[in-house]
Amino acid sequence: MRKSIATVSVSGSLTEKLEAVARAGFDGVEIFENDLLGCPLPPEQIHERAQALGLGIDLYQPFRDFEAVTPDRLADNLRRADHKFRLMERLGADILLVCSNVSPGAVDDDALAAEQLRLLAERAAEHGIKIAYEALAWGRHVDTYLRAWRIVRMADHPNLGTCLDSFHILSRGSDPGGIEAIPGDKIFFLQLADAPLLAMDVLQWSRHYRCFPGQGGFDLAGLLAHVLRTGYAGPLSLEVFNDSFRQADAGRTAVDAMRSLLALEESVAEVLGTGSPLPRPAQPEGFAFAELATRDHKRLGGLLGALGFARTGQHETKPVELWEQGRARILLSRIHPDSPTDTSLVAIGLESPDPALSAARAKSLLSPALPRHRAADEAPLAAVAAPDGTELFFCDSAQPRWRDDFDAVEPPRGHIGHIDHVALGHSWDHFDEATLFYRSVLGLRPHESVEMADPYGLLRSRAMSNASGTVRLALDMAHVGAASQELPGQHIALADDDVVATARRLRALSDDVLLPIPDNYYDDLRARFDLGEARHRELRELGLMYDRSDEGEGGEFLHLYTVTVGRVFFEIVQRVGDYRGFGMANAPVRLAAQHPPAPAPERD
Amino acid sequence: MRKSIATVSVSGSLTEKLEAVARAGFDGVEIFENDLLGCPLPPEQIHERAQALGLGIDLYQPFRDFEAVTPDRLADNLRRADHKFRLMERLGADILLVCSNVSPGAVDDDALAAEQLRLLAERAAEHGIKIAYEALAWGRHVDTYLRAWRIVRMADHPNLGTCLDSFHILSRGSDPGGIEAIPGDKIFFLQLADAPLLAMDVLQWSRHYRCFPGQGGFDLAGLLAHVLRTGYAGPLSLEVFNDSFRQADAGRTAVDAMRSLLALEESVAEVLGTGSPLPRPAQPEGFAFAELATRDHKRLGGLLGALGFARTGQHETKPVELWEQGRARILLSRIHPDSPTDTSLVAIGLESPDPALSAARAKSLLSPALPRHRAADEAPLAAVAAPDGTELFFCDSAQPRWRDDFDAVEPPRGHIGHIDHVALGHSWDHFDEATLFYRSVLGLRPHESVEMADPYGLLRSRAMSNASGTVRLALDMAHVGAASQELPGQHIALADDDVVATARRLRALSDDVLLPIPDNYYDDLRARFDLGEARHRELRELGLMYDRSDEGEGGEFLHLYTVTVGRVFFEIVQRVGDYRGFGMANAPVRLAAQHPPAPAPERD
Repeated sequence: MRKSIATVSVSGSLTEKLEAVARAGFDGVEIFENDLLGCPLPPEQIHERAQALGLGIDLYQPFRDFEAVTPDRLADNLRRADHKFRLMERLGADILLVCSNVSPGAVDDDALAAEQLRLLAERAAEHGIKIAYEALAWGRHVDTYLRAWRIVRMADHPNLGTCLDSFHILSRGSDPGGIEAIPGDKIFFLQLADAPLLAMDVLQWSRHYRCFPGQGGFDLAGLLAHVLRTGYAGPLSLEVFNDSFRQADAGRTAVDAMRSLLALEESVAEVLGTGSPLPRPAQPEGFAFAELATRDHKRLGGLLGALGFARTGQHETKPVELWEQGRARILLSRIHPDSPTDTSLVAIGLESPDPALSAARAKSLLSPALPRHRAADEAPLAAVAAPDGTELFFCDSAQPRWRDDFDAVEPPRGHIGHIDHVALGHSWDHFDEATLFYRSVLGLRPHESVEMADPYGLLRSRAMSNASGTVRLALDMAHVGAASQELPGQHIALADDDVVATARRLRALSDDVLLPIPDNYYDDLRARFDLGEARHRELRELGLMYDRSDEGEGGEFLHLYTVTVGRVFFEIVQRVGDYRGFGMANAPVRLAAQHPPAPAPERD
Repeated sequence: MRKSIATVSVSGSLTEKLEAVARAGFDGVEIFENDLLGCPLPPEQIHERAQALGLGIDLYQPFRDFEAVTPDRLADNLRRADHKFRLMERLGADILLVCSNVSPGAVDDDALAAEQLRLLAERAAEHGIKIAYEALAWGRHVDTYLRAWRIVRMADHPNLGTCLDSFHILSRGSDPGGIEAIPGDKIFFLQLADAPLLAMDVLQWSRHYRCFPGQGGFDLAGLLAHVLRTGYAGPLSLEVFNDSFRQADAGRTAVDAMRSLLALEESVAEVLGTGSPLPRPAQPEGFAFAELATRDHKRLGGLLGALGFARTGQHETKPVELWEQGRARILLSRIHPDSPTDTSLVAIGLESPDPALSAARAKSLLSPALPRHRAADEAPLAAVAAPDGTELFFCDSAQPRWRDDFDAVEPPRGHIGHIDHVALGHSWDHFDEATLFYRSVLGLRPHESVEMADPYGLLRSRAMSNASGTVRLALDMAHVGAASQELPGQHIALADDDVVATARRLRALSDDVLLPIPDNYYDDLRARFDLGEARHRELRELGLMYDRSDEGEGGEFLHLYTVTVGRVFFEIVQRVGDYRGFGMANAPVRLAAQHPPAPAPERD
C-alpha cells in the first residue's frame, strides 16, 4: 500500500522534512500550509524537490470553514479557494483537504453544505483538483464521519469525496463499522493516527497527543480493515500532531513512522486473513544474558561476587568476562577509555526460537542492524540496536552456542536463577518509539504506562512482556518537561527463590552492597499490610521491600536493590504466587533512597 | 495570616524542601506521606529539624479511603489510622487530612460515613489529633465540599472538622458562597491552589497542572473572602501538584509560592474592604529605555543607525551609549569579556509615577533588589531582577533624570516614536513565575496564553499589559518538553507611524537589515485578506507582514523584523485603529524565517 505522511508529523524546515521522510521510504506527503508558508522556495521548486526525492504530494491541507455559510461569506470562501487551487497547480498537489466548518457562523443545514461543496468541487474540477471533505471531531455541526459522507453523497460530484481520519472517528467513540457502507472510490484519502486513551478536551488531545499507530490505544487495524473492504486504494497517510515529535530528530521520527505503517499492514492482514507482508515474529523466550560495560571491573565483579555470581569464563578473543549463577548470565566488557560514559548496560541477549527469523523481522521493521566483528570460529549472533542504543542479540534458545566462545566452566547454583526483568532508561523523545519497537519487532505486549514520583520530577514507566512472562522489560523515561536531560538509571532484576536468605547473607557480608531503605517505609508498611510482627521485623531488618497484588490469582513480591555503579544497579526479586507487577508502589521510596543525602544545610 | 505549604509543592528531599520553604518565610508545612517515607530521618528528627527552621508541621496527609465502608474494612482502616496517629505524635503533627473515599467498595450512605468518621475522631482525640475531612472532586460519592460538611456536622465531634481545597471546589464549578454557612471553627484547614482553565479529566488536571494563586484562572480572592467571613483563623496553605515545580529549583519555587500568598492577601483585603498589607501598585506608564549588552557595538550601532536612531549620549562614568529616536531609547552596554553570553537584552527602564513606591512594592513581594554602583552625582535608580534575569529599573515619569547622566543631545525625530513592546524569553520553569511576578509586582494584566509552531517545537507566549496599553510585555517560553534548553529570542518592538516609509528606506539601504519573508506568505495573505492589488504588492515588495483584528473597535497591524544579533532582534510595528494584538498569526512564518537555511542535503 502507498505510504504517506503529513509534514506536520516531523520537525524541521519543509525541505528537511521532505528529506527525512524520503529517506525513511515514504511514497508521498501531505503538505501542511504552515510548512509551505515558512519555506523560502516557490511551490514549483518544492514540487521539483519532492519529485527528485521520489515523493508525491498526495494532499494539501487544511482548507477551513468553507461550507454551510451565508452567500457573502461563500463568495469570499470561493475566492480563497481559487487562490489555493492555483497554488496547488504550482505545487503539483491534486487533493485539497476541506475540514468541516468550526466557525460560529456555520449553518446547521446539510443540504446547504452539500450545495456549496458541490460548487467548490466544480471549481476544483477546472483545475484538475479533488476535494476531500473531513468531519473534525469538534466540527460546529458536522462532527462524525457518517454525516460528512452523507453530505458528500448528497452533493454528488465526481471531484468531491470524503477523507477519513482515524483520530476524529475513534476519539469520539464512533463505530468504524459504518465505513463499509461508503464506496471505496468516494474515500479520497485516509489519515491515520493513534493516541493514548486520555479523558480530555478532544481538540487539545488531537493537537498535542496523537502518536503513530501502535504507540497508543486505538484499534487501527480494525478501522483499516473496514476501509480496505470498501475497495479504498489510496495511500495510508500518517497525520500526527505530537509535541515531542515536533522537536525530535526528523530522520528518526520518520523511520519510527514508517515502522508503524509496516506493523499496521501486518496487523490488518491478520484481520483480513490475507498474507502477511512481514516475516512472522519469533517472540523471545528468555534472557540469554545482559552485558555491562564498565571501567571498574573490580567494583562490578565484587558486587556480582557478593550476589553469588562466579566468573565462569573469559571471551576467547575479546576482553569480555562471563559471570554466571544458574541461568542468570552477565557479561562484563570494557568501556573504551576515551568514552565519556560511565558503567552502563550496553547489550541484552534474547533467547529466540529462530534467531535468523528474529533478525529478518527486525530488519524488515527498519531496526538498525549492527555489524559484529567475529573471529572464524565464534558463534554467529545477529544484533540490532534498540531505541535507547542497547544492542539486542538474538541467541538460539535450543543451542546457546555463544557461551562456547567463553570456554566457560559450570556455573554455580545459588538462590538466583535467572534474569527476571531488565529496566532501560529512555530520553523523552525515544519513549513512544521504544513502545512500538518492542511491540512490533519482538512481539511484546505493552502494559499500562505509569508515573512515579522522584524527588526531582515525575518519571514514566511502561512494562513490556512476552505471553509467558519470561521476558519482561521496563521502559523508563525521565518525564517530558525534564529540567535535565539526565536519563533514568538502568537495572537488571534477578529472580531469587529465597530472597530472605540472600538478603541475610548480603547484610552479613557488607554494609556497602545494598541500598538502605528508610525506616519510615517499614512503619508505613505495617499500616498498609497486616504482615504479622515476625515477618514485618524480618523485612525491616533485612531492608526488603514488599508488595502484594490481587491481579490474576494474586501474589506477593519481595525485592531489594544494590547500590548503583555508574548508571546501573541490580534488583533481587522473588515472586510468590501469581504476582505480575514490578513493585511500583515502592518506587518513590526507592527513588528517594537512590539520591545521595543532601549536604548539610547552608544558611544565608 | 499564617502561611503554609505542602511539601509536594516543591522539589527535593524532605530536608531540602523544609530548608527552602523556611528561607522563603513560610510558617508551616503540610507533610506529604511519600516525602516522609523516602526520608532517612526518623519522625522525631524531622520534627526537630522543622522546629529549628521555625516551621510548624500543620498537617499530615493523605489518609485515604476510610469512611462509609463495611465493618471488616472499618476494622482494618482503624488499625491503619492507629499507626498514623502514633506516627503523627512522633512527628509533632496534630491534624490529619482524610480525603473522601474513592474506592469502589465505598457505600453511598452519609449517615454511615458520619458514624465512622466520628469513631475515627474519637480515636484521634486520644492522641490529641484532629481530623480534617475533605471532599475530593473525584470522590466516589462525596465529591462536593457541602456534602463533606454535612457529614462532618452529622458526626458532631469536636475533633472532626472539614478541610476546604480551592481546587476541588472551583474545578467542579461549585459556588464557593456556600462556605459562609460553615462555622469558622469547623473549618480545620484551607488548601489553596490555582489552575489554568483546562477542559480535561479533573484528576489529571489536579495532579499535573495546579499552580500558585495568581498563575491560573481561578478567583481565589473571592473564595478566600468567603472563608475568612466564617471566622476561619487557620493557615493559608498551598497544595500544588505541578510537573514543572516538581523539577524546578526548590528555593526559587518557595519564593514564588510565598509571593503568591502575599498578593492573595492583598486581593482578599480589597474584596473585604480591609487595609492592604502591601504598598499599593504604581503601575508603569511607559518604557523609559531598553538596554542591550553586546560585544559587537559596531554591528548593533549600525543596525540602530539604519533604523534611524542616533547615538545621543555616552554615560559619564560607565561604558554605556544612549541611542535615541523620538521617545524610543536604547542603551548599549558591554558584555564582560569573560561572559559566555551573546548579545542580549539585559535591562528595561519603566516609567513609574512613583519609583520609590514601585521599588517598595517590588521588595515587599520578594523581588530580588539589585545593588547599583552609583557615582555621587548620578541619578538614583531602583532596580529589581525579573524572573528571566532582566533588570527592571523604575524611572520617574515626570522627571527622567537618568538621561542627564548621559549628557545627551536632542534625539532625532523619525517615524519611530517609542517602544511598543518588549518580548522576553523564559525557560520552562520560570514561565508561571513570570506571569505572577508581572501581575503582582507591576500590576500588569495577563492576556491569554497562546502557542506558536516553530519548525523545531511549539513555543508558548503570554502577553501582559497595563490598562492603557502603553506598557506591553510578551513573555515567551520554549515549550515544556523542550529538546534543548535553548531560550527563545528576545525582541524590542518599536512603534512606527509610517512603517511603509521605514520599510522602503531600509530595503533601499541594504539587504542585510531586514528578515526576508518567504514569498509563499504573500500568496496566502492574498487568499486570507482582500487587500487590493496595489496594497498587496507593496507589502510583498517591502517584506511587511499584515494582520487584522475585530477585537475592540477593530484595527490593522503592519510589522517587520530585523535580522537577529545574538539573542536579540527588533520588530518595527504600526498599529492602525484599535489593534491590540501582536501579529501572532504571523509568528510561525517569522519563526521559520529566523532559522538559518538548511545546508544542502546530504545523501546516503
